[in-house]
Amino acid sequence: MKRPTMQDIAARAGVTKAAVSFALNGRPGVSEPTRRRILAIADELGWQPSAAAVALSDGRADAFGLVVDRPASTLGLEPYFMQLISGIQSELSTTATPLLFTMAEDQQAELATYRSWWARRRVDGVFLVDMRDPDPRVPVLTELGMPTLVIGSPATAGGLPAIWHDDAAAARTVLAHLTGLGHRRIGRVSGPEQLHHTRVRGDAFAAGAAELGLEYVTVPADYSGEAGAQATRALLSRDPRPTAIVYDNDVMALSGLTATQSLGLSVPGDVSLVAWDDSALCGLVNPPLTALSRDIAAYGAHAARQLRALAAGTPVGDLQDPAPLLIPRGSTGPL
Amino acid sequence: MKRPTMQDIAARAGVTKAAVSFALNGRPGVSEPTRRRILAIADELGWQPSAAAVALSDGRADAFGLVVDRPASTLGLEPYFMQLISGIQSELSTTATPLLFTMAEDQQAELATYRSWWARRRVDGVFLVDMRDPDPRVPVLTELGMPTLVIGSPATAGGLPAIWHDDAAAARTVLAHLTGLGHRRIGRVSGPEQLHHTRVRGDAFAAGAAELGLEYVTVPADYSGEAGAQATRALLSRDPRPTAIVYDNDVMALSGLTATQSLGLSVPGDVSLVAWDDSALCGLVNPPLTALSRDIAAYGAHAARQLRALAAGTPVGDLQDPAPLLIPRGSTGPL
Repeated sequence: MKRPTMQDIAARAGVTKAAVSFALNGRPGVSEPTRRRILAIADELGWQPSAAAVALSDGRADAFGLVVDRPASTLGLEPYFMQLISGIQSELSTTATPLLFTMAEDQQAELATYRSWWARRRVDGVFLVDMRDPDPRVPVLTELGMPTLVIGSPATAGGLPAIWHDDAAAARTVLAHLTGLGHRRIGRVSGPEQLHHTRVRGDAFAAGAAELGLEYVTVPADYSGEAGAQATRALLSRDPRPTAIVYDNDVMALSGLTATQSLGLSVPGDVSLVAWDDSALCGLVNPPLTALSRDIAAYGAHAARQLRALAAGTPVGDLQDPAPLLIPRGSTGPL
Repeated sequence: MKRPTMQDIAARAGVTKAAVSFALNGRPGVSEPTRRRILAIADELGWQPSAAAVALSDGRADAFGLVVDRPASTLGLEPYFMQLISGIQSELSTTATPLLFTMAEDQQAELATYRSWWARRRVDGVFLVDMRDPDPRVPVLTELGMPTLVIGSPATAGGLPAIWHDDAAAARTVLAHLTGLGHRRIGRVSGPEQLHHTRVRGDAFAAGAAELGLEYVTVPADYSGEAGAQATRALLSRDPRPTAIVYDNDVMALSGLTATQSLGLSVPGDVSLVAWDDSALCGLVNPPLTALSRDIAAYGAHAARQLRALAAGTPVGDLQDPAPLLIPRGSTGPL
């Protein structure tokens, strides 16, 4: 069964294709009985206007886009994106609006995708993730005039509307938890340094540590388990070694736990560990990981609501979601 | 900067919109010098035909679709889908063809999405995953006439073309590995029983165990870490307990490792563990997990190539990818 066309309806009704077009579009040119007969046949054949025809008539693509330029191997292990996407789609699905989701090799390919999507009207707007500081995508998207919602700090958004939460507040919460347990030497395994929120967290940790008179040392990594294990070993080989380590995602915290235990150290007896982002992974290991938890699906849904409004021409401001909460589990303990 | 329209080109060139349309579509009705001037202005303004216009003229959506109806919470932890999607996109991106990716609440919602995408020409075809046996989606898609590629066994595909690999062969490989190490009591934590490949693996394990005179017991679960831990505890409370356990995905194997160690049992000293699907997770834990490895990204790319051919009207047969390989690591050892 092929998709029914106006031609099929015309053949079945014994009229011209023009008559079918008049009838379906409610325009004059056919008699009322013929119009009713044509509509009945269209209904029977399951005819619907094509998305292309609707897009041509109102200029809307009725779809939004998301491009991610992390390597697929890392992405496959990053629960954050699947949760973000499912949140975006929980909102978009209320109007059956699809999400075009693509991975790009690098930022050049990402920009080429935006240009092509916009020029060809594939999407009504895009979500921007993994913000740099400064972010070279912002001036390009601003110049294109494509509705764009930044999922990240307004500081990186160059005037584009943003949705964000306060990473600095979350960093201070972690320090409060660890100092409350008596820790004074804190290590951190960070995400990529070119990402804005890596720097926001780092600045907050450094400022908080200085204020509290703590020793604080950070080792950059790339969110992969391998890099997380290597950075953990580097931190634990210091003398004196840190008594607590904070990770910028949960995959690195998981591999850090394994690396720490493999060195014959006990968690939390010798070293306390904290994960950032609380996927189900954190509960699957022994001891379970203390983690910063946030409702990523809700964050995605809020982002989708903002972008939808923006694409409809409604002025949209920045929106701040609640800061992550610390969920204490077995991986942190008193010194 | 708005997207340039034919109206913009007409205004700049000082001609009618009809003249612009004639010029851009290579139709008669404008003089050659005017055509050249219009094309130069279109070029300068960065004009491109909209996807909608192209779709209307050739009837193609130039996009493919994938609907997954697993719960978002489980999906976020399942590296398989991100790898599959990145493989599909590595192929589709060679022609800048986007993938429409959606999660559905249930199979009713999934079917409604297919109907709507096809009726509105949103996609030129879809990938079907998580095959049931029998699968109620197959007759619906067959009746719709939408090009559909089944990612799963031809036995479930009802004549639709399929891409698959031999799960039964992989099960026999696992049994050969474990019996080679001296194991005679094998437990299995399976995926959902309504999925066809769960049954294929189960039948192969049961037949192989009968042939080799092994004790074999299986406990169904749902791919989540929580269910994997619970099923592991159920298996290990048996008397005598199995000396080896095989898991249908890597997340359950990871939680099974934690559950086993939490019972005071050593892996692999007391119990050997095998994971199905070899994401980076398997290497992040101690001991690292012996796993069945397959190139999921290549599988996705092959699937995309097949669906693309199918949508172009090329007859497409079933394609069998190589069976998964067993990668021995620290979680399996001699009895």
